[in-house]
Amino acid sequence: MRLAQLSETSGVSTATIKYYLREGLLEPGDRVTATQMDYDARHVHRLRLIRALLEVGGLSLATVRNVLTVMEEPDVRPKDVERAAQEPLSTRAGLQRTEATSDAAVSEILALAEDWGWAISPDSPAVYTAAEALETLLRLGQTGLADQLDEYARSAEIAAAADVKASHLDGSTREATEALIVGNVMGDLLLASLRRLAQVHRLRESQRSGRCCPASENRSGTGHCG
Amino acid sequence: MRLAQLSETSGVSTATIKYYLREGLLEPGDRVTATQMDYDARHVHRLRLIRALLEVGGLSLATVRNVLTVMEEPDVRPKDVERAAQEPLSTRAGLQRTEATSDAAVSEILALAEDWGWAISPDSPAVYTAAEALETLLRLGQTGLADQLDEYARSAEIAAAADVKASHLDGSTREATEALIVGNVMGDLLLASLRRLAQVHRLRESQRSGRCCPASENRSGTGHCG
Repeated sequence: MRLAQLSETSGVSTATIKYYLREGLLEPGDRVTATQMDYDARHVHRLRLIRALLEVGGLSLATVRNVLTVMEEPDVRPKDVERAAQEPLSTRAGLQRTEATSDAAVSEILALAEDWGWAISPDSPAVYTAAEALETLLRLGQTGLADQLDEYARSAEIAAAADVKASHLDGSTREATEALIVGNVMGDLLLASLRRLAQVHRLRESQRSGRCCPASENRSGTGHCG
Repeated sequence: MRLAQLSETSGVSTATIKYYLREGLLEPGDRVTATQMDYDARHVHRLRLIRALLEVGGLSLATVRNVLTVMEEPDVRPKDVERAAQEPLSTRAGLQRTEATSDAAVSEILALAEDWGWAISPDSPAVYTAAEALETLLRLGQTGLADQLDEYARSAEIAAAADVKASHLDGSTREATEALIVGNVMGDLLLASLRRLAQVHRLRESQRSGRCCPASENRSGTGHCG
């Protein structure tokens, strides 16, 4: 197909497609004439992938470029796959190890990983992201959530098991790497929104029953709060 | 304390503090002289909260303003709390219901919520965010993850139960609302990073054992795969 049709099929404007071509995010099509290229289904898929990571996943163009680069390596090394899987997370939050991340928070995350039998590198980017989130909670006085770390690990374990079943996490092929990255980015969003739905339900329940709201109960004294 | 000390204690520059004051994100201090204000621990806390939501949580300034507004309402209504809890999610992803979100995806999320006994409004923002993530996975050919929806719901249920224990989710007080919002934003990050750590472990396991990779099984014919 020609550029105009690629644009129509993918829903991406020709100006944006040309930009991705210049930036190397999209491979050139086959040259038909001196000025015309021919594109195929792979180009449509790649454009959908780029738009999904940018628009739905909220990744930056630089992060999208990095993960696409990993996907394209003909012989993907395990280290690259691990990095790629963690990158959308660490870059989206704009996190790297900062001075604000205390050794105590990092140690707590490493101890949690050990409790759960997760054999990971102590310098995995996700260790620092988790430590930064924990540290921030404590700095803001939210110790309750920090006490629930083990339950969050349980929740994460179930999600990771589902990820394995879903995408053959071995990452030994280009397809498996793509499944891992797309699954991680969209899975974050899916998990976060399902968590909100389960919360809203519990929120309504506690408002109806008067449980879990000691403050208003004490004020009204009726035992029916919310 | 004076502005200079507030800046030193909070780690936020005086120019940024003045900007937050002008924008109404930070309440004015007590006037000491015509040109000097006095700030206290509440201002330090508020500045830390704003920076955490912006820098660690990755929220936009507009979203931070919205959630702070909900926190400040003296008599928070349940509807407002529900909205505030979901807002950081829907706005971070920049999502609203779009034409791209099919009725089928929305129905699937609503059916999942019903299966789990989550009594929610069909028009909850998180329903559309979940549907958009699901729809995107299917559009990119990642059907494996879409088949694991029930496991993701299980993971979300465990996290939401931990959230309730952590922060008295009733949201009937300013403190409970703040705990809910901060817990949601940092909890997203914590869950996403712990999920990555659990994944990396499984990834390494499957590379060592050759399990969980049917493609290599078929090629090698060893029959050891999970």
